[in-house]
Amino acid sequence: MKTFDVDLDERSYPIFIGGELLARPELLAPYIIGQQVVVVSNETVAPLYLEQLKASLTAFNCESIILPDGEQYKTLEYLNRIYDGLLTARCGRDVTLIALGGGVVGDMTGFAAASYQRGVNFIQVPTTVLAQVDSSVGGKTGVNHPLGKNMIGAFHQPQAVLIDTSVLATLDDRQLSAGIAEVIKYGLISDEPFFCWLEENMPRLLARDDEALVYAIERSCHNKAAIVAQDEKENGIRALLNLGHTFGHAIEAGMGYGKWLHGEAIAVGTCIAADLSRRQGWIDEVAVARVMTLTKAALLPTQVPAELSVAKFNELMAVDKKVKAGKLRLILLKGIGEAVVSADFDSDLMNASIEAYRES
Amino acid sequence: MKTFDVDLDERSYPIFIGGELLARPELLAPYIIGQQVVVVSNETVAPLYLEQLKASLTAFNCESIILPDGEQYKTLEYLNRIYDGLLTARCGRDVTLIALGGGVVGDMTGFAAASYQRGVNFIQVPTTVLAQVDSSVGGKTGVNHPLGKNMIGAFHQPQAVLIDTSVLATLDDRQLSAGIAEVIKYGLISDEPFFCWLEENMPRLLARDDEALVYAIERSCHNKAAIVAQDEKENGIRALLNLGHTFGHAIEAGMGYGKWLHGEAIAVGTCIAADLSRRQGWIDEVAVARVMTLTKAALLPTQVPAELSVAKFNELMAVDKKVKAGKLRLILLKGIGEAVVSADFDSDLMNASIEAYRES
Repeated sequence: MKTFDVDLDERSYPIFIGGELLARPELLAPYIIGQQVVVVSNETVAPLYLEQLKASLTAFNCESIILPDGEQYKTLEYLNRIYDGLLTARCGRDVTLIALGGGVVGDMTGFAAASYQRGVNFIQVPTTVLAQVDSSVGGKTGVNHPLGKNMIGAFHQPQAVLIDTSVLATLDDRQLSAGIAEVIKYGLISDEPFFCWLEENMPRLLARDDEALVYAIERSCHNKAAIVAQDEKENGIRALLNLGHTFGHAIEAGMGYGKWLHGEAIAVGTCIAADLSRRQGWIDEVAVARVMTLTKAALLPTQVPAELSVAKFNELMAVDKKVKAGKLRLILLKGIGEAVVSADFDSDLMNASIEAYRES
Repeated sequence: MKTFDVDLDERSYPIFIGGELLARPELLAPYIIGQQVVVVSNETVAPLYLEQLKASLTAFNCESIILPDGEQYKTLEYLNRIYDGLLTARCGRDVTLIALGGGVVGDMTGFAAASYQRGVNFIQVPTTVLAQVDSSVGGKTGVNHPLGKNMIGAFHQPQAVLIDTSVLATLDDRQLSAGIAEVIKYGLISDEPFFCWLEENMPRLLARDDEALVYAIERSCHNKAAIVAQDEKENGIRALLNLGHTFGHAIEAGMGYGKWLHGEAIAVGTCIAADLSRRQGWIDEVAVARVMTLTKAALLPTQVPAELSVAKFNELMAVDKKVKAGKLRLILLKGIGEAVVSADFDSDLMNASIEAYRES
């Protein structure tokens, strides 16, 4: 098992990574303050792993809340089901919530923890690659609004993150690829050697080679933790983690939440960002080709359906959280492993890049 | 005009108190970071003061969102109307929200500000005595849930609080008295001389004597700010501000939100807390009589309807935010001006106190 800390002063917390961790009660217990624990999970994950997790929590009064599975349920309405469950179980401020599931469960449970009785403790037990490398680390929590992704939420750090790589055995192929989209992102942002490693090792990841998965997850978490430690509330450098996300969020909202997986949308969004960086003259065609080739090797999409127009993209991106004084800012590339936040791009070139990645 | 700061390190903010402050744009401008301002108000207050406030904001791009008036609308559903308005207006993270209204508008706008795009700035412009002396100071924000008052929310401090006492001219008598319930609370918690002043000056407050109102509001804000500065997130001493609130919240939820004003429920709750303190042997009958007399002098209720049973009280109080390890904690009195947080009370005596304040 690997352990390292996300360094955030009094909000610092450990990440544990390894196989069969759900079966180790001594890892979770130190991070549970009271006697009440509520596990929030979904209809896909709960039948597989809820009992196993509960078996590690016999020292506590443990209940569970099960949500339907899918991004389309990441709404205020379903968030309210968590509040209903907590109040019906008469949970106090000393309750600890545990998120057992992918990014949707993690983001919703985290926001429920941030807002229930103005804030309670929570622990992340992510069960998808995407949640393990991204959404469970860094304290961003929230739900979607019909007009924009993750528009309602809070920064609320977990007490601990428990990444049990054994659970990936049951992850479906589409979810595995979607998670790898965020893994590729870390290479592109600031870790060229990792990007090169991914170019070499993508077949091993898709074959679920345990050693390769653990390495990719750990390196991704390290990359993310290093950035979050410098800029917890995204006043600067943390925005880099949004590479591909401005376009990706527009795809998710524009297609209807739940149609595309988050990672799939981010994959296309990253290709568009690379293409725009080339049109700006910041990277060359070889770099764009490497991004495209690796994305395809991960069995991820590189185009959006024709129904999503350039105008629709622009409309949806206007509410992006990185908009400042009415001006959109994008994460673009100056090289493989060198991302920048920039409002200094040509809108016509941006629209040309979007157009180039629409199916004809 | 009086000015003083709520001392919370980097989250410190000023409170301005005086007449005709809405007409002074220079007070608000330094606390607005971007170009976009959204005023949230309600159907009662907006027709009276929205244009006046907007006239002070001509330097900004200013929009407004108007909610219906009443505690029954302090829900996730109506909170979502604020998000709808912010997204439709394409507000970015640099928007500043201004709450123009009473406690409901302030709590909801504050929580919208805490959660919109994971947190934006806001300014409180409270228009009721209750909001001026209590809910606008200290950063508690939130909405109600059918199973409990203020169960969903956040600690989110405003950038500034602007208390224009001129607006109290249009406050209805019932609202005025409800606000005075929270004023009395400060005397009881830690300021006996203020309690004595209130015993002398209640007729002046009810007659809306400007000097008396400004004095009572300022002294209340000082009392609250001093406590909040010591314990921003209610890990200890701040709970004292909840004198009368455990019983009061049960009354509000039990009667149906919006039937009783918050301050009316707190008035009866405070009488019950005083009575229980006497039954515990902590204060004498004279002290209880003084509380009752002052409450009646403020034209506040001192009894709840018979329909609210002792059992119903207990059920509703079980989800109180001060419950710790399953044990209810109450704010009780050891004297006039000496409140304590205690789990060390007799449940039978508590039920007897509740019974004594039910209409027969």
